[in-house]
Amino acid sequence: MTAENSTIYLDYGAATPLDERVRAAMEPYDRELFFNPSAAYDEARRVRSDIEQARARIAHLMGARADTIVFTAGATEANNLAFAAVSTDAHLVSDAIEHESVLACLSAREHTVVGVEGDGRVSPQAISRAITPRTELVSVSLANGEIGTVQPVRDIAAVVRAERAHRLEEGDMRPLWLHTDASQAALALSVNVSSLGVDMMTLSASKIYGPKQVGLLWAADGIALAPLVAGGGQERGIRSGTENVAGIMGFARAFEIAAAERPAETKRLAALRSRMERALISAFPQAQVSGPRNARLRLPGLLHISFPGIDARRLVLLLGQAGVLAATGSACAASKMRVSHVLSAIGMDERTAAGSLRMTLGRATTRDEADRATKIIIDAVSAEYARLGGAS
Amino acid sequence: MTAENSTIYLDYGAATPLDERVRAAMEPYDRELFFNPSAAYDEARRVRSDIEQARARIAHLMGARADTIVFTAGATEANNLAFAAVSTDAHLVSDAIEHESVLACLSAREHTVVGVEGDGRVSPQAISRAITPRTELVSVSLANGEIGTVQPVRDIAAVVRAERAHRLEEGDMRPLWLHTDASQAALALSVNVSSLGVDMMTLSASKIYGPKQVGLLWAADGIALAPLVAGGGQERGIRSGTENVAGIMGFARAFEIAAAERPAETKRLAALRSRMERALISAFPQAQVSGPRNARLRLPGLLHISFPGIDARRLVLLLGQAGVLAATGSACAASKMRVSHVLSAIGMDERTAAGSLRMTLGRATTRDEADRATKIIIDAVSAEYARLGGAS
Repeated sequence: MTAENSTIYLDYGAATPLDERVRAAMEPYDRELFFNPSAAYDEARRVRSDIEQARARIAHLMGARADTIVFTAGATEANNLAFAAVSTDAHLVSDAIEHESVLACLSAREHTVVGVEGDGRVSPQAISRAITPRTELVSVSLANGEIGTVQPVRDIAAVVRAERAHRLEEGDMRPLWLHTDASQAALALSVNVSSLGVDMMTLSASKIYGPKQVGLLWAADGIALAPLVAGGGQERGIRSGTENVAGIMGFARAFEIAAAERPAETKRLAALRSRMERALISAFPQAQVSGPRNARLRLPGLLHISFPGIDARRLVLLLGQAGVLAATGSACAASKMRVSHVLSAIGMDERTAAGSLRMTLGRATTRDEADRATKIIIDAVSAEYARLGGAS
Repeated sequence: MTAENSTIYLDYGAATPLDERVRAAMEPYDRELFFNPSAAYDEARRVRSDIEQARARIAHLMGARADTIVFTAGATEANNLAFAAVSTDAHLVSDAIEHESVLACLSAREHTVVGVEGDGRVSPQAISRAITPRTELVSVSLANGEIGTVQPVRDIAAVVRAERAHRLEEGDMRPLWLHTDASQAALALSVNVSSLGVDMMTLSASKIYGPKQVGLLWAADGIALAPLVAGGGQERGIRSGTENVAGIMGFARAFEIAAAERPAETKRLAALRSRMERALISAFPQAQVSGPRNARLRLPGLLHISFPGIDARRLVLLLGQAGVLAATGSACAASKMRVSHVLSAIGMDERTAAGSLRMTLGRATTRDEADRATKIIIDAVSAEYARLGGAS
């Protein structure tokens, strides 16, 4: 049905190709402006200045000050850096559907993991109840990468602010910060740190058509970050190592493109997603779509749908052979072949969870591709149900 | 004298341009094979397999097993990872001319810093004397990036082995490992871990005409590395985060090229270096060349020369204007405008140290360039001495 040359990629949530415009912004730094930004001659100072301008351009798009951004090797390192800022006797609060890098960081300290609603939403009240006098960090992602739930981060920020005001009244100097991993959200949502009311934010270039292994942690003034890696003192001593010059230049360009294209692109992707969703639900009424019913509370290009009884790992391989590349869950967890912690947390039964397909649309996804993919998926799922005894 | 289009770059020790062949090896992974290696479909498995082949190719060149290599975001992170492997009550041994990332890691534990000879050599006997019953890690770089001294790592390895044998006899189970940061040495010296007798080795792509922010730590079987960054469990759980696919492919290619060209290139660079050295010493008999007299014990493309009385920071800027890009020291420390800890450690007086120029030649350096640079340096240093009152 589909030729090998017409592969339809529906896994932009796992990895985005490098945008050609981003590649063009990086290229001069490979061979012409390859200088070490710490060197003393003008050519190197130019590179230093270009990095700092890139930092300022990114900061501007976040509504932040440039000197509050630390470049890292990706979102995982940035999340780890945020958690390293708390005291050893601190209590942490997070939720059950965070990325594995956040869950892994929790385990180093006393912590409370709040449950989520059936649609994946974290309740600000639940966060409020979980905060103890020793809580120093609350970490809730801006949007979930597996089922697409957009979190009420502004409302959670209000809860955190209230607790902070309370501590101030009591003369309690223990800090309390709200961190959000916005790496899955940056293509679809504003990441203005002031309007969100967060204190720390993680972003990743690799999820916004930038290079892999480039990310950042923004931390508000007054947060004393503790380095994970010590050395030459780059990034204000927070993150040593010669700067990833080309990567940082690419990150800035990718972020600018994402911000400029965000309004039109989110509308376009949400429409394509709804079209696929309607067709799949109409073909398989028993299928379950995860995430909030209100499409505005879901990442626009993400469709998480579960076909009870189907083995989605098998389905993904069959779809791959038919030219449609999709996922069973987020790539990080998917390779481990176990039931997603996100689906457990939203209360999905194992049989349904095992039949879950995550499709993430992106910049190159056309309506024709979405339609062809939908047809291929319907055929494949129908064939699987038929093979299993016509349960469809 | 020199036109702007004929800038002579003599700071390859600070940064190397990305080799075109390396760039070509990376390119397919930007937009065609950009898939997340953890995804389940064939295209992603192909990327996973390419990474693992790259790891095997690098391992082969190190005489190591592929599954003992952890990719990092550079040498600084790799050095930090090596030091994170020791117990909290461990004692560490290193020397006074290590890179700042090693010196910074030392400070987290009880440690002894051994002095070096006037030529920068670390004495194996000094290491032996510094080892205590609680020493778990000895870290000595394979070659120093500032003055070029090649360290007697094989002899130090023998010392470490003897101590290990002694502990075994005593039934003492405390481990003792020898780590070497070979990032400055990999273009010039064999980095075969077996013949060197080391237990851990740091390498960096950015010093061998590969991409910036890509490095590795090799650790022998039986060394339990502790992750600095937790998350999705990539790199056998030691270093989480989506793999730097293009960067790793580039690293492997850069390493292969470096290994293939090493014999001829080291000979060529050593000859150019000697030519420059002879001309400069002949013009300024008072100048001091640092590092071992025996040119074989110095990195072939590195010339560290001190002009007593000259302000080398000023000299570097003047040379930059005349089209010669050189350094006062290693770029990491140079931006901080203080006297190099390496030159203090070899006992150089401050006045001489302040007049130090480091030139590092590289793949694109021609004999004509070396000669032109020499002339420009002689002119600039002469003018400086004349300005200072004819001390020359």
